[in-house]
Amino acid sequence: MSTIKDVAKEAGVSIATVSRVINKSPNASEQSIKAVTEAMKKLSYRPNAAAKALVSQNSATIGVLVADVSDPFFGTLTQAVDRVARAAGKHTLIGNGYHAPREEQESIDLLINNRCDALIIHSKALSDETLISYAEEVKSLVLINRHIEALAGRCISLDNFRGAYLATEFLIKHGHTKIALISSNHDIEDAHERKKGFEAALRDNNISPCERMVELGDPSSDGGEEAMTQLLTRSVEFTAVVAYNDYMAAGAMSVAQENGINVPDDVSIVGFDDGLIARYVYPKLTTIRYPIKMMAEQATQLALQLSKGLSDVPEIMQFTPTLVRRDSVAPVRKK
Amino acid sequence: MSTIKDVAKEAGVSIATVSRVINKSPNASEQSIKAVTEAMKKLSYRPNAAAKALVSQNSATIGVLVADVSDPFFGTLTQAVDRVARAAGKHTLIGNGYHAPREEQESIDLLINNRCDALIIHSKALSDETLISYAEEVKSLVLINRHIEALAGRCISLDNFRGAYLATEFLIKHGHTKIALISSNHDIEDAHERKKGFEAALRDNNISPCERMVELGDPSSDGGEEAMTQLLTRSVEFTAVVAYNDYMAAGAMSVAQENGINVPDDVSIVGFDDGLIARYVYPKLTTIRYPIKMMAEQATQLALQLSKGLSDVPEIMQFTPTLVRRDSVAPVRKK
Repeated sequence: MSTIKDVAKEAGVSIATVSRVINKSPNASEQSIKAVTEAMKKLSYRPNAAAKALVSQNSATIGVLVADVSDPFFGTLTQAVDRVARAAGKHTLIGNGYHAPREEQESIDLLINNRCDALIIHSKALSDETLISYAEEVKSLVLINRHIEALAGRCISLDNFRGAYLATEFLIKHGHTKIALISSNHDIEDAHERKKGFEAALRDNNISPCERMVELGDPSSDGGEEAMTQLLTRSVEFTAVVAYNDYMAAGAMSVAQENGINVPDDVSIVGFDDGLIARYVYPKLTTIRYPIKMMAEQATQLALQLSKGLSDVPEIMQFTPTLVRRDSVAPVRKK
Repeated sequence: MSTIKDVAKEAGVSIATVSRVINKSPNASEQSIKAVTEAMKKLSYRPNAAAKALVSQNSATIGVLVADVSDPFFGTLTQAVDRVARAAGKHTLIGNGYHAPREEQESIDLLINNRCDALIIHSKALSDETLISYAEEVKSLVLINRHIEALAGRCISLDNFRGAYLATEFLIKHGHTKIALISSNHDIEDAHERKKGFEAALRDNNISPCERMVELGDPSSDGGEEAMTQLLTRSVEFTAVVAYNDYMAAGAMSVAQENGINVPDDVSIVGFDDGLIARYVYPKLTTIRYPIKMMAEQATQLALQLSKGLSDVPEIMQFTPTLVRRDSVAPVRKK
């Protein structure tokens, strides 16, 4: 691979001149632009991004940490970051944390060592303290889908309580009073807040929450299948289910159908996320919309602002989920 | 942010010594390791990945170009690359090409300028010539899901012809003779090869292919809906459909069901990819498995080999799709 020296020699100019041309300096003469451009082409020279990054102490990249980019939820998040990054002339470096503290930390370290201009971090496995210390080190770090009070101006989060409240209330409006909750067994804010929202909606409608109606599992379709099987096996009486996410809802629906329980005639169900699969399951899933695209765009814009030393806090830091009405909820059947 | 100079000063050693410690040189004394490590901690110094990359002319990153990381197919591809990369102590830089020649080219240029050790390229929009010229420049570039004869040792591809042949043959074995093809309107090898495989299976079973039975559309569920609507509107008689991918199949199924056509009793359907949604549609989709995870792993291993100057061509360069039997195909109904 040819170097900047080779280009300077070929073009008959100094290395500094080549550098001026590459960096589009207004001090480069037209003559030298022409000579350098031709020499670069002839030698297949490529300006070294690492060299540029070393000089400017940034790399024109935005780093994003997600749990797992093969999950469409994180794919959507990553794509939204990438779209905003490209519009700002930057590209995206992606790290997977796989829900594990060590892998999250390693990925964040790599992104920082690569001098990303801005970081969008989706971390569920690291402690508040660890994230606060990263945020102190990197001024343009923004957390998504997490709220830490000490970093309030740099957290873009969702009102999980409200989402679960909405789902539960929607079922109650359809006459349901025996409502089960299929939730995640991950010990994270999202799961706690959604359970609180579920219980608050019950209480506000004079229904007593009952632990027998709550089943936890892995937040996947397998986890949803297992949780629904548990509910049926334990002979819990219910006419409706609030699910932690669309995957768990899909798993629960599939077990119900295999057991001759019709959705929504016998059991109504509401998901959470409004992900890709919500439109493909049968019947189509009524769910709570997680505006992850909008949130990721806002997080990226905020991080870019912070990287320029600006600190305009956007108006919306906590987004509100909404209900998407499809075909998996019906009025309760009178027995 | 503190620099290597600050660390040297704080530790009372030379910059070269700090560099030796950072790069884990065997020539660093225990005493200097201790002094430098403490100084780095005190000053929150982070070794600059750009500086390392400049010295070694590589960045310990693997670059991957996909069409759109928010599509689960490409999410799976990217994740497989990342897993192999991590095992090799590298991380992943991802570019989206959005099926457009300019964006594909820009993304590849960025990956090259960042001195990625290896490149995994999924390109459908660029010409053979352009890709050959990139491959000449970057010796560790591997193409995935594309076969270019001049780069035969660096292409990991799928036998698309065979996949469509299998799907069609499976329907014929169930007694179907009136089989429609819902294909992609993208002018790419995959679409052409699958159509050829479809027609070959028909001919091998003494059924004449007929253009009236072929409908093209965007390779998405919307495209599948439109194509199925077209077939119904044009009063084409068919009892089975071979779809270009699972999304088109899902769209086609949904239009069929809305029109009172039962899947599989009235119309059987076979998808392609065995993506996430194949298990969530109702009935579960019989489809052709696209071993994208395995292919991406192999492509990454090959690219890493090439980046070390090794050129062991793996045994399998073209993978073979297999049929996944689920619930969307039934024997043809005698009228």
